[in-house]
Amino acid sequence: MITEQHILSAFDRDLESVQAMIMKMGGLVEAALSDAAAALETQDEALAEQVRKGDAAIDALEESVNAECARLIALRGPIAGDLRTVLTVMKIATALERSGDYAKNLAKRALVLGQLAPIPGAAGAIRRLARQVGLLLKDALDAFIARDAGLAEDVRQRDLEVDQMYNALFREFLTFMMEDPRNITACMHLHFIAKNIERVGDHATTIAEQVIYLTTGTLPGGDRPKADLTVEGQ
Amino acid sequence: MITEQHILSAFDRDLESVQAMIMKMGGLVEAALSDAAAALETQDEALAEQVRKGDAAIDALEESVNAECARLIALRGPIAGDLRTVLTVMKIATALERSGDYAKNLAKRALVLGQLAPIPGAAGAIRRLARQVGLLLKDALDAFIARDAGLAEDVRQRDLEVDQMYNALFREFLTFMMEDPRNITACMHLHFIAKNIERVGDHATTIAEQVIYLTTGTLPGGDRPKADLTVEGQ
Repeated sequence: MITEQHILSAFDRDLESVQAMIMKMGGLVEAALSDAAAALETQDEALAEQVRKGDAAIDALEESVNAECARLIALRGPIAGDLRTVLTVMKIATALERSGDYAKNLAKRALVLGQLAPIPGAAGAIRRLARQVGLLLKDALDAFIARDAGLAEDVRQRDLEVDQMYNALFREFLTFMMEDPRNITACMHLHFIAKNIERVGDHATTIAEQVIYLTTGTLPGGDRPKADLTVEGQ
Repeated sequence: MITEQHILSAFDRDLESVQAMIMKMGGLVEAALSDAAAALETQDEALAEQVRKGDAAIDALEESVNAECARLIALRGPIAGDLRTVLTVMKIATALERSGDYAKNLAKRALVLGQLAPIPGAAGAIRRLARQVGLLLKDALDAFIARDAGLAEDVRQRDLEVDQMYNALFREFLTFMMEDPRNITACMHLHFIAKNIERVGDHATTIAEQVIYLTTGTLPGGDRPKADLTVEGQ
């Protein structure tokens, strides 16, 4: 019994350590997203540059999470729910790494947009979208730590609002482009920025779905709710 | 010795079975990409619809790969290189699932583009881009099965050509948009299509990097070669 107890707590201790890494990664990604959006709005080149360079730390954390999870599996031989948890941690790390890439891309485009005539209201709208998505990411990770399927389901539903914000932006940028061809290049970059932020929202949803799978044993049924109308209606 | 032999071959047999699933998934994704591009070019609605619906089979295969890998880890307790291989299989499945999503998105946009005035030469250029990327994906998976780090490195380098093709398309679509605002909506969809295909190329590179990691023990040093100039220069 003592041995079993010992093995169990060693696994739990290791798991807590990788979970702490995941939360650190999540914090970095949220900050990168928020900083990149702020850099776009205030045209702060130094901040954009900082986000660009900071992505390496996120990538390095993903590699550490992967290595640590592999070590944990080999050393502790988890099965059933414990193994599922470790594999979920690896999936979350991948989702966060991709999200970090999107924040880095936003920072790059913020620098390019600084050299173009500004589109009225665009940077503010992008910042609001980024804030919403940052909250989704935060809640998805909190849902993971608390194994809270209810909060995870809430994230899934709120991603619909993000999709709607994106659709509204898509139409607005299109209007600016049609009104004046000189807006086209800037609007193209803004489009990609909006789409990339919307994709971070999809990654938050992926994390939320993993939490639901982890706690209930089944993935949410059917397709995830999806409201990107730009490929449906327009 | 006999027992060890038995355990080893049981692992190998299981591994072969998930590798077969990965190759099947890869085949479906390559076909989806190629069919979606063909549907765009020939305005074949039925084919586009088939790609759209076919994505569910790719998603289901990813879930099977994940379940099978988890079973394999729990049952066989692989360590070191064997464990790394199983975890790599799961990463490849994720990359293929995302690639399938991009092909599905292409198919959806092909349907939308059918209702807009065509952009001369665009569909052909998209098809060529899709073919190049399909080959990258195929070679990345072949490199995985053969554990061929040389072929994997070749995939990494050839992704640069894909990036260059994408950059050329980006500029071309921009010109069409500036020339005539009536082209804007169609060119926006074509832009997203091109970007999504370029992203499938990135996933092929991710698979190639996993193969290099698997065979050499280290990830390729530094950033992957990257030549998306649309956020750098323009």
